[in-house]
Amino acid sequence: MSRMFGRTLREAPSEAQTPGHQLMLRAAIARPLAAGLYTWLPLGFRVMKKVEQIIREEQDRIGAQEMEMPVLTPAEVWKMTGRWDMLEPITFRTKDHNGREFMVSYTHEEFVHLHAMSEILSYRQMPAMVYHFQSKGRDEVRPRAGLLRAREFVMKDAYSFDLDEAGLEKSYAAQHGAYVRTFQRLGLAAISVESDTGAMGGDIAHEFQVLTAVGDDRIAICPTGDYSANLERATRKIETAGEAFPKAGKSEIATPGATSIEALEALLKLPASAFLKTLLVKDAAGKAVAVVLPGDRSLNEAKLRKRLGVGEIRFAGDADFTAAGSVPGYIGPVGLGAPILVDASVVSGRGYVAGANKKDSHLKDVALGRDFTAEVLDLLHDVVEGDLCPKCGTPLELKRGVEVGNIFAYGTYYAKKMNATYLAEDGTRKLFFGGSYGIGVGRQVQTIIETSHDDRGIIWPFAVAPYEVHVVALPMNDETVRSTAEAFVAALEAKGVEVLFDDRDESAGVKFADADLIGIPFRVTVSKRSLTSKSVELKPRASTEAELVPQNVAADRLVDIVRRAREAAAR
Amino acid sequence: MSRMFGRTLREAPSEAQTPGHQLMLRAAIARPLAAGLYTWLPLGFRVMKKVEQIIREEQDRIGAQEMEMPVLTPAEVWKMTGRWDMLEPITFRTKDHNGREFMVSYTHEEFVHLHAMSEILSYRQMPAMVYHFQSKGRDEVRPRAGLLRAREFVMKDAYSFDLDEAGLEKSYAAQHGAYVRTFQRLGLAAISVESDTGAMGGDIAHEFQVLTAVGDDRIAICPTGDYSANLERATRKIETAGEAFPKAGKSEIATPGATSIEALEALLKLPASAFLKTLLVKDAAGKAVAVVLPGDRSLNEAKLRKRLGVGEIRFAGDADFTAAGSVPGYIGPVGLGAPILVDASVVSGRGYVAGANKKDSHLKDVALGRDFTAEVLDLLHDVVEGDLCPKCGTPLELKRGVEVGNIFAYGTYYAKKMNATYLAEDGTRKLFFGGSYGIGVGRQVQTIIETSHDDRGIIWPFAVAPYEVHVVALPMNDETVRSTAEAFVAALEAKGVEVLFDDRDESAGVKFADADLIGIPFRVTVSKRSLTSKSVELKPRASTEAELVPQNVAADRLVDIVRRAREAAAR
Repeated sequence: MSRMFGRTLREAPSEAQTPGHQLMLRAAIARPLAAGLYTWLPLGFRVMKKVEQIIREEQDRIGAQEMEMPVLTPAEVWKMTGRWDMLEPITFRTKDHNGREFMVSYTHEEFVHLHAMSEILSYRQMPAMVYHFQSKGRDEVRPRAGLLRAREFVMKDAYSFDLDEAGLEKSYAAQHGAYVRTFQRLGLAAISVESDTGAMGGDIAHEFQVLTAVGDDRIAICPTGDYSANLERATRKIETAGEAFPKAGKSEIATPGATSIEALEALLKLPASAFLKTLLVKDAAGKAVAVVLPGDRSLNEAKLRKRLGVGEIRFAGDADFTAAGSVPGYIGPVGLGAPILVDASVVSGRGYVAGANKKDSHLKDVALGRDFTAEVLDLLHDVVEGDLCPKCGTPLELKRGVEVGNIFAYGTYYAKKMNATYLAEDGTRKLFFGGSYGIGVGRQVQTIIETSHDDRGIIWPFAVAPYEVHVVALPMNDETVRSTAEAFVAALEAKGVEVLFDDRDESAGVKFADADLIGIPFRVTVSKRSLTSKSVELKPRASTEAELVPQNVAADRLVDIVRRAREAAAR
Repeated sequence: MSRMFGRTLREAPSEAQTPGHQLMLRAAIARPLAAGLYTWLPLGFRVMKKVEQIIREEQDRIGAQEMEMPVLTPAEVWKMTGRWDMLEPITFRTKDHNGREFMVSYTHEEFVHLHAMSEILSYRQMPAMVYHFQSKGRDEVRPRAGLLRAREFVMKDAYSFDLDEAGLEKSYAAQHGAYVRTFQRLGLAAISVESDTGAMGGDIAHEFQVLTAVGDDRIAICPTGDYSANLERATRKIETAGEAFPKAGKSEIATPGATSIEALEALLKLPASAFLKTLLVKDAAGKAVAVVLPGDRSLNEAKLRKRLGVGEIRFAGDADFTAAGSVPGYIGPVGLGAPILVDASVVSGRGYVAGANKKDSHLKDVALGRDFTAEVLDLLHDVVEGDLCPKCGTPLELKRGVEVGNIFAYGTYYAKKMNATYLAEDGTRKLFFGGSYGIGVGRQVQTIIETSHDDRGIIWPFAVAPYEVHVVALPMNDETVRSTAEAFVAALEAKGVEVLFDDRDESAGVKFADADLIGIPFRVTVSKRSLTSKSVELKPRASTEAELVPQNVAADRLVDIVRRAREAAAR
């Protein structure tokens, strides 16, 4: 420790946002070089490599082949699938001195398809699954909580190629199983939830979520266990029956200055659910599209992005309102000069209050199917706590989670756009059926810290601890203590035990505080006091109890403890 | 092999420039995604990881601590040392959506100093040495010969921090030793040569060069063994004695249209050495500077770059010639309105023919020290074959080499610019003394291929072979052959031997050609014919002799051969 590059900090820097972020910095696991850009210090590097190795072993176990694609990826391939433009807001781009454009890779679907086209000629070569660990760039607007949401991070991304949908389902299931084993070995209580496919395309996707208050994903979970989904994807049971049209026809009411649902509630003394909320957004081609929701519901942006085929929602400007014959603050679906998407929970036939498309005016008794028509989209709004499970009707719970992995079965989404085909058994050329499977390495490390620590520091699961045994010599300037501790360290290392040796000239207080902070599973203290009883003191990090172990059997005892811990961790 | 992602090619793509480049592509080691951007296919990935592990072990052996710094590095830190501008021509840059600039890392001297400033507070924490394997970006104008000069590649870069020059020398020597062992284990006959410090700063640097005709570095070597240097750095013994001034004063001669040394030689019937060659270039501030060389010598750009403090030589334009009172094609040192740098081999006092700074005219009997004065720089020209060794005067040889590693002792070069200090034992703050030490991983792999192959394919040194044993079943559709081969593979794998199994339905010709191409050290053929004598056929890749090994002892025999090969490779 006297030479370790990376020093522990008594206090966490003020910008540290979560307990794991604070401990990660304090324990010298990683250091920021800039917002969202981190260096693994030697101690953290060892954890990261152990995490990587566990992920690798579980990929190898299902027959995935390791390879490595580059960080810089040429624009023209991204353009084949439309993702060059779609990913612009969240990626880093560069140009070479000839003006050719590259992306700091976001993921590698396009590129692995390119390779598959040249390496997989025939159906005989499938199923095929490859993976790599590679740095990814994400220009997050708000890098968050250290390694939980960084702007550069190493991801294990795997890709499967199959003959057909049935083959893809098998590969997807194999990866799902590998993920379950991976998180279990990492000591993470991850649950699998349905998720949005986002920028990946396709329709089937799952995320593995570790439920913790520091997570920035929200998960809808049915307490019966039959349903769990990321809020971006979640749906709920709704009454689908329409109602009879209201007796009254639509009629204009004066609503001066009432440009929000809150203002309308106050003005008209009606609940939010009595209103229609109309939003004017732009589609992928930049044309205005209206979105209509019940007034008491929030837009689910992920679902709208997917429907519009855009990477981020862009709201319409004044010119678009004018072109659609409306005004901001008073927009409504009746007579609007733009295509309308309506959330499926807007009850057909029921009379709502909606904007009149003129300043200071709304219409009441506006009914879908009579006063306006629209494309109905299944749940374009966010589910809230207490909404009913779509499977069984039980009230849903909402929890926060950290997404530690995701898997996508996108099928022919990329193959179609890239014309990526193989020679099928019947002699025709067929499209590859693909899936992709990602785990961010740094996020695992910090999620482990977020969920495995106490007031004093990190409590590493044995499988990913930077070292297995922490030997503390007290004091180092006592010749007997020093030589005993050194001999003990040498004996452990000779047996292959990974030892961190606190050989610094520091007080017992500093050394014990650092040992608790760094969180190595077993601490052994060699002190003047312990040596008076010819013993060393052994204390597991997770326990409050220390025990004295006779000096002459201590090394053998520790080797045995480590051996059993390794076996348990490998299961 | 039937499922291996990556297929061998009968013919090398036409763009493959060297034998190693051709074999690398044919054997499915790596594939280009774009010019200079490569993907490691699974077979090559295994080689790359073995190379990386050997490098790692030798770094660990000298006490270097592994860490990992990011690929994206913020501009403001590069600007502290002036390298943001200096490296512009050969690096990739990007901006985030807030307009903040980043470089795809070139190396990490600036960043490791930043970390040292926060992690190393006191002299007690040194010497310290850290390293990482990380992707580097180099926007090479001409990416060359596959992995020999790629635009993205993983480099192991190590950095040492010491108290003083003496400490740095020790760290430098430790790295030099680690490099010698590393290349020896990789099977590369690398020699250590003096080298230019280039963009790294400082004055002491060595390169490790593997001499091969495909290399693009040129190395001056004294056959006595007392001197070897990269041509960029090489010097030679020259007569330093000046001469008496020529009797005649300088006088103008008409040289219509003679704008090159070749044209002047023809016109005046004089050897090239009778002329002075004058070049007008720009310094770091963009101001014109003249460089004067003997007419028979070529400019050494590396030395001039270093003197000017620029990343690349920019030649002056017409306006600069006019401002200096000269014209292109007829520039000379006499009366020139620009500072002059003169190569030390221009003999003081001797009369030369030089440009007259007016069209179609030169001056004869121009003498340094009489007709012009200049800053004399030690050897600003390239050494050529037959020049004399600066140490012993023996004629030098020029060879081509591939630079497989480089080490730099830059001292306080970065620390000064960044004010990177530690608390010294005497209570004052002192500058870190640093060095950096690089090895490109991909270049090792291809250099091994360049220097270890035959007409049929690669011959991997055992230590880096993708697999240890290649088992070929012939034919696979023979039930006895198949089951015997599978049992043999299983027996080897159970003993931890790395086996590539050719289980494809291909002919003997195809399978043997692929085995030779891929170049795994030991090939074992299980065939109908070998089984008639209850044997398998064993053939080392490097040998032309095959032998029959009785089937019942074959697995034990191979395990033993592999064990001995591993031991030999670890030495």
